[in-house]
Amino acid sequence: MDRTSLMTGIEKNWEKFLSMPVSEKLPFFSRDSKIYDCLFAQQFDRASLSHIFSVADTLRTITKNKEGMDFAGSLLSHKRAMLYFVQPSTRTFLSFLNACHILGIKTGEIRDTSTSSELKGETPEDTVRTFSSYVDMIIMRHPTPNFVEKTAWLMNRTNRPVPVINGGSGKDQHPTQALLDVYTLHKSFSGEIDNKTIAMVGDLKRGRTVRSLSYLMKNYKNIKLIFISPKEFAMEKDILDFLKKHNIPFYETDNFREGIAQADAVYMTRIQDEHDKNKESAGVDISSFEFKTEHLNIIKKNAVIMHPLPRRSEIDPLVDEDPRAVYWRQERNGMWARAALISHIFSVDGQILKHK
Amino acid sequence: MDRTSLMTGIEKNWEKFLSMPVSEKLPFFSRDSKIYDCLFAQQFDRASLSHIFSVADTLRTITKNKEGMDFAGSLLSHKRAMLYFVQPSTRTFLSFLNACHILGIKTGEIRDTSTSSELKGETPEDTVRTFSSYVDMIIMRHPTPNFVEKTAWLMNRTNRPVPVINGGSGKDQHPTQALLDVYTLHKSFSGEIDNKTIAMVGDLKRGRTVRSLSYLMKNYKNIKLIFISPKEFAMEKDILDFLKKHNIPFYETDNFREGIAQADAVYMTRIQDEHDKNKESAGVDISSFEFKTEHLNIIKKNAVIMHPLPRRSEIDPLVDEDPRAVYWRQERNGMWARAALISHIFSVDGQILKHK
Amino acid sequence: MDRTSLMTGIEKNWEKFLSMPVSEKLPFFSRDSKIYDCLFAQQFDRASLSHIFSVADTLRTITKNKEGMDFAGSLLSHKRAMLYFVQPSTRTFLSFLNACHILGIKTGEIRDTSTSSELKGETPEDTVRTFSSYVDMIIMRHPTPNFVEKTAWLMNRTNRPVPVINGGSGKDQHPTQALLDVYTLHKSFSGEIDNKTIAMVGDLKRGRTVRSLSYLMKNYKNIKLIFISPKEFAMEKDILDFLKKHNIPFYETDNFREGIAQADAVYMTRIQDEHDKNKESAGVDISSFEFKTEHLNIIKKNAVIMHPLPRRSEIDPLVDEDPRAVYWRQERNGMWARAALISHIFSVDGQILKHK
Repeated sequence: MDRTSLMTGIEKNWEKFLSMPVSEKLPFFSRDSKIYDCLFAQQFDRASLSHIFSVADTLRTITKNKEGMDFAGSLLSHKRAMLYFVQPSTRTFLSFLNACHILGIKTGEIRDTSTSSELKGETPEDTVRTFSSYVDMIIMRHPTPNFVEKTAWLMNRTNRPVPVINGGSGKDQHPTQALLDVYTLHKSFSGEIDNKTIAMVGDLKRGRTVRSLSYLMKNYKNIKLIFISPKEFAMEKDILDFLKKHNIPFYETDNFREGIAQADAVYMTRIQDEHDKNKESAGVDISSFEFKTEHLNIIKKNAVIMHPLPRRSEIDPLVDEDPRAVYWRQERNGMWARAALISHIFSVDGQILKHK
Repeated sequence: MDRTSLMTGIEKNWEKFLSMPVSEKLPFFSRDSKIYDCLFAQQFDRASLSHIFSVADTLRTITKNKEGMDFAGSLLSHKRAMLYFVQPSTRTFLSFLNACHILGIKTGEIRDTSTSSELKGETPEDTVRTFSSYVDMIIMRHPTPNFVEKTAWLMNRTNRPVPVINGGSGKDQHPTQALLDVYTLHKSFSGEIDNKTIAMVGDLKRGRTVRSLSYLMKNYKNIKLIFISPKEFAMEKDILDFLKKHNIPFYETDNFREGIAQADAVYMTRIQDEHDKNKESAGVDISSFEFKTEHLNIIKKNAVIMHPLPRRSEIDPLVDEDPRAVYWRQERNGMWARAALISHIFSVDGQILKHK
Repeated sequence: MDRTSLMTGIEKNWEKFLSMPVSEKLPFFSRDSKIYDCLFAQQFDRASLSHIFSVADTLRTITKNKEGMDFAGSLLSHKRAMLYFVQPSTRTFLSFLNACHILGIKTGEIRDTSTSSELKGETPEDTVRTFSSYVDMIIMRHPTPNFVEKTAWLMNRTNRPVPVINGGSGKDQHPTQALLDVYTLHKSFSGEIDNKTIAMVGDLKRGRTVRSLSYLMKNYKNIKLIFISPKEFAMEKDILDFLKKHNIPFYETDNFREGIAQADAVYMTRIQDEHDKNKESAGVDISSFEFKTEHLNIIKKNAVIMHPLPRRSEIDPLVDEDPRAVYWRQERNGMWARAALISHIFSVDGQILKHK
């Protein structure tokens, strides 16, 4: 189905649109065969990932001096963005804010609904449409499941849509986190993600980062996955089914030491107890799934240790000093990957790649 | 009375100054025969409205491409503004913020007194004077009646005044809302506001937008007004007296269908129950004053439907898709009218009008 | 001890580092023989104060027109700063924000931990390291004693440090307040601080501004200090010992009228009751330590009245109109002194001084 037929067909009803498979929705959120609204990790294929990584790498090189940073800051100096983050966030918020600033985009922000007109009985849909009246792009995190998608859907039905970027929606989608995670693998392995073994550790059941990352692995060849977790937090069946369907080998274990020893990348995560319904996290012993200095002797010499951050006790801060601990770089990669994505959406990525 | 005599005369006492008629105060808030502090809708006459609309229209045309937006962004790149909004606001805040950004003004904001020195026992007057130490303009919304005016009065008595713009003060004045409302009429009627019939619907008693708009109609010829409301929310006597004095015909009705059928513009408003003293709004049935899709068949073919937003149930969202529903454009007009006003205050409006 | 030996020696242990005398720590927070992290008033000596004041004065002159302000705004247009202020602050926050904007630095801010990842169990150290991932400088105010210093210490041990500026840490250090206070003396006395008598009034026991200012007086010749306070709020012994050691004469009195009559500068302060442990402030009568219009007849004709602000009742607002009341100028001096300091840290101070 192309975008025009989507505009006139089934998508006029939100509930029906929502129920469509993601793959069928994608054209609705694309323009000129590329991402317009960034909502789902599924919007990234190997070619677009590779392209965005090139743009990010080039942008970092260019901006190492003042002349280059001023060039970057001129690219989108005519654009304004709205950051609407009504759930706690430090990293995602700040990395998007600074990604905008790198490209010269002026920013406004609402981080607290107590200062907004929602208090006066406005619907969330009207509030977001208001944002779009003033800016050229909306970047948002929202607690309501599917609300970011609904925003993009609504915008696309007005005569003045603006791109919507998902900075985390409910517990499901956080596509730019997936983007920066794959970018970190790309940089850690000199661009060669194929043939790697990736261990994911912790709360695999509810961690949207490990779910998205598993999904995106289908873009690479001969990947092996190791899921290391207490049984209570094992990876969900939908992802395991997806991996089987795409012939991506995986195995599940609760043996942390054995699992990490085989991995090229060890992706640590924290327990997502904010999603607890009944304090179930409190009953699970995760002490044997924590990365301590002693584990530095177990993992491969060229392995990398990743974490989406924030962390609690999953990684001892003393591990930070080992060169294989790349989570702080991973965090920084997020800003550059997001800047590259935004440059792509606004079609100035070509200018970046051409810069001498 | 000219500004100098005002500076040395009665206005040295705030209470006395406050009690003066607005018309006598205006010179105090003007410089070089134009607006310096923007506090009252009464500061706009037909000539200044027409001028600001021209600037706004030109600015929109200029900024349709990057070169023009960068030109606009260079005009006031040497200025800094403070947005001090200690009452909930989305639209007014964001449209001022983005108006500043369009003109290249750098912005700081305080939206929450819990992060400010008022906690340490500072008077509001000292707090605002502090803002003025760092910036070139203060844009503010404040719940205390007349506080924005008092701020401008205080500033003008220091040796380093900065312009003050009223973004909503108490329940009385919100001059830039009036500005954008008239700008929307101007754009909707191709610049010809004379001879039009305007219906205002809803809480006319406490809605400052309809009060200001009624007032500004004296600048146009042969206007007719229709006030449509439940009796409990009828337009106040002071406005009706003003209209009589200026020979502006009006009539009051509680018949929604009949009223809107005759109008060139239907200005809908919501019940301002935040001003309730005793939950009086709850006892009034407003269901027959709501604009539903069926009413699209009743209003004139060239009529426009306006609303200052946010809305609750006054307008069915399905009405949004009718081309006569201009409230989303009205919202956007606010940003451009405010940018034009600011350019006027800082005397770069001439540069905008001269831009090829 | 030079910086390299500090990097590899004792400072690897935070508790040990913290316990070192400030003078021994300074090299760790310097680069190329100048301030890198600005943490302590002790980092300023007569030469660096004089240099920063020259830069501030020049910057003010340059920026009096648009061309000059645009020049200033180009100097650090390639830099981004993070303002992390988790204690109430208006002046320090806004003056740093606008100092950044004057130099073209793009800013992000967190002023409320309820919107950040600290909620997810992240350590403050990880939170601050996250900020440093995205920006080129961190400016912070934090309630935890020594936390700003710890942040700078941590940053310097990573492979990507960024300068840290202390905007107020616990009740001890607030070095840029001291900087602006001395800058105000410098401007009030046409650059001649030597030979002046300075009276400090109010809560000398807990006021960090008067403590820092006393300390910095050792950089000037033939200074006399008069400490005027109720006994309960007398200056602490450590400062008195410091003054004795440096042969700076002082005397203590509770006679306000007598004390201020002799001073070239009267530095008023408010009672710091936010540091009360047991409501002890409530029991002290400070009414005889308040500056009223009658005192304008007592002080010297060329004296200046200073106050770090915010004030409560220590200074009658009617005093503001006397030309000797310089506290509002002092506030504004803060912005320029901070801009000069930042330009110094990023080594663009030379470009400012060279500007025609």
